[in-house]
Amino acid sequence: MRILMIGAGGVGSAAAKILVERDFFEALVIADYDPARATAAAEAATSRRAGESRVSAAQIDASDADAVAVLAREHGATHVFNAVDPIFDMPIFDGAFAAGADYLDMAMSLSHKHPDAPYIECGEKLGDAQFAKAQQWADAGRLALVGIGVEPGLSDVFARYAADHLFSEIDELGTRDGANLVVRDDDGNEIFAPSFSMWTTIEECLNPPVIWEKERGWFTTPPFSEPEVFDFPEGIGPVECVNVEHEEVLLMPRWVDCRRATFKYGLGEEFINILKVLHTLGLDSTEKLRVKGVEVSPRDVVAAVLPDPATLGPRMSGKTCAGLYVTGKGKDGAPRATYLYHVVDNADTMRDYDAQCVVWQTAINPVVALELLATGMWSGSGVLGPEAFDAVPFLDLLKDYGSPWGMQEKPVG
Amino acid sequence: MRILMIGAGGVGSAAAKILVERDFFEALVIADYDPARATAAAEAATSRRAGESRVSAAQIDASDADAVAVLAREHGATHVFNAVDPIFDMPIFDGAFAAGADYLDMAMSLSHKHPDAPYIECGEKLGDAQFAKAQQWADAGRLALVGIGVEPGLSDVFARYAADHLFSEIDELGTRDGANLVVRDDDGNEIFAPSFSMWTTIEECLNPPVIWEKERGWFTTPPFSEPEVFDFPEGIGPVECVNVEHEEVLLMPRWVDCRRATFKYGLGEEFINILKVLHTLGLDSTEKLRVKGVEVSPRDVVAAVLPDPATLGPRMSGKTCAGLYVTGKGKDGAPRATYLYHVVDNADTMRDYDAQCVVWQTAINPVVALELLATGMWSGSGVLGPEAFDAVPFLDLLKDYGSPWGMQEKPVG
Repeated sequence: MRILMIGAGGVGSAAAKILVERDFFEALVIADYDPARATAAAEAATSRRAGESRVSAAQIDASDADAVAVLAREHGATHVFNAVDPIFDMPIFDGAFAAGADYLDMAMSLSHKHPDAPYIECGEKLGDAQFAKAQQWADAGRLALVGIGVEPGLSDVFARYAADHLFSEIDELGTRDGANLVVRDDDGNEIFAPSFSMWTTIEECLNPPVIWEKERGWFTTPPFSEPEVFDFPEGIGPVECVNVEHEEVLLMPRWVDCRRATFKYGLGEEFINILKVLHTLGLDSTEKLRVKGVEVSPRDVVAAVLPDPATLGPRMSGKTCAGLYVTGKGKDGAPRATYLYHVVDNADTMRDYDAQCVVWQTAINPVVALELLATGMWSGSGVLGPEAFDAVPFLDLLKDYGSPWGMQEKPVG
Repeated sequence: MRILMIGAGGVGSAAAKILVERDFFEALVIADYDPARATAAAEAATSRRAGESRVSAAQIDASDADAVAVLAREHGATHVFNAVDPIFDMPIFDGAFAAGADYLDMAMSLSHKHPDAPYIECGEKLGDAQFAKAQQWADAGRLALVGIGVEPGLSDVFARYAADHLFSEIDELGTRDGANLVVRDDDGNEIFAPSFSMWTTIEECLNPPVIWEKERGWFTTPPFSEPEVFDFPEGIGPVECVNVEHEEVLLMPRWVDCRRATFKYGLGEEFINILKVLHTLGLDSTEKLRVKGVEVSPRDVVAAVLPDPATLGPRMSGKTCAGLYVTGKGKDGAPRATYLYHVVDNADTMRDYDAQCVVWQTAINPVVALELLATGMWSGSGVLGPEAFDAVPFLDLLKDYGSPWGMQEKPVG
């Protein structure tokens, strides 16, 4: 396996560090728009393993499908691993296809609001642009494995595991994400600092959340709908969660039989309030505005005024939890409610990988998937989500990587 | 009386329209940095009265004291009326003095936070820069009447009236400002749109609020301290009010005997929350930030993203109330609590003056004061607040202008 990874940001850099611990690949090219960033990520990874010579760096414009194809061919890439913002999904996806390589990403192509009823009906959905080309990939016998981060990704693997091994009938596949992360300033005071790109968080949280129901198909609601306090495991505790647009809702019902699929994000009351205020004022807007002689987009200003999430690791403490809450009937036919989850402590990822936990938790899953593809444990063609594959080898290998998942029975309501 | 009014914004334009209804002055020169704005204000005022020939327009840089003096001398101004942002107070104040004219403003020179204990102790206070020159004005026999808008202004007149005619002993002089104004978009939906400059509102509300107590003198607290629901008259009803830095607290105790002076602004829960969020994120900052290749101050972006308050009049409905809540002992020695107030309905000021109510309510008071100075009912020298003068002629003349004030007894707590 020869991997071309596009993107040397937080997730890409962490994935490279995890990759060099494994023997399953022959080459890893790390490409970024900023060649210095690509080189730094390659060096940071290489320095972790004596004699490591598989990693190199390159420059790429991820918005240019032809450039992606040229670089993939130049390095004989068998797999193109997309580790940049989903805004670049389509050129990388198309470039990989053109070069004859397989493709992986951690977030699907972007959605567009319904022009008339944005908070009731779906417009173009997450991944629609990719699924529109599924036949082309299938016909060519080539694989695009989409949404293989932690959420989407591990959450989708959990869905498949629940259907195959835990439940005879599923009511809801409810992804639930929560954390108790705290960021402190140099004086030790708690500060407001999102652990993920504020620009993307606004995009994700203010887009109309999508829900799937068997009778109704996909539909949307207003932002922050159906608030629910979910009790997260391993000391995180109760966090207020609300519906958010996310890939799981678009992926799971394609392969796993259920009555309803949702994604709720544990934003917490403070963060929800902040996002609502930004929206009320129009500060979430991406349209440029004239301000005292210069043109600037309000959302860019909001992102710029906050600390860079990539720098927060050392000032952060706490745990982050990704998981899937499944309700329905167990294999014995009795009502069952189970939370399948993966918790990461920031102290551990900082110590072992010099990576912030949210970023590291995203990065480990595509590496596990690449290893399953390299060894032939997973194989397929077309545009497939993680739930299209057998969950057991993935969950076993994740444990083997030293990052076990957990399972908690919940009260049946 | 020959008036040089500097500033042809909302308040200046409304003041000019009110002025032309009166006969007490010989000339009104409206000067603005933007000569077109000055001309428009002059024409709007002149067109309201047949044969009106007293009003002219000029260009001025309000930050240049020499330019103010030159323009004042050129037009033989006896009174310079400052109707621009308080940031320009000192050059206009000094320019008027240099030209031998008297001076009026509606907000005093700006404060600066205490460097070490900003939310406990005062640094340079509102008006300190002006009061530092009080002797100079007094020695020259010249008058600077500071803080003669509605708040400060009418509120200070109320303080003097309460002390002279209603109370034998005053515990608290508590300015309380509230409104039930609502702004709607073209579809009739309520939108968030402050009725006053958002830049100034942030400045006012996030600066440490100042309080005066007889034993302690002036001191500060954290923003939004001492929340209190105050029940406003004439159908406005209860509004959440919090301490805000304001001139009354600096003015009233200089001339009126009391135990405590406060200013609480009826921001309401939504607005308080918005200001807190802006502060949490650092979007209240005035320091320039680099955002995608341009330099911009976050606070300027927040102001730019909101509708221009000057355009809101036609889309606004409701009433605004300025007033003073006085507690203590009545002239009979019995406990007394009285709210002296002035309510303006936006529908009235839009119909009669094509001016938004908050702006119009600010503008009428300096016009009343100018008339009292012109007729000799008010006279004095030095740097004086409105409470240094007899309140009765002011309150009578305000009624005569068709804008009566009110008084409401409150339960004694």
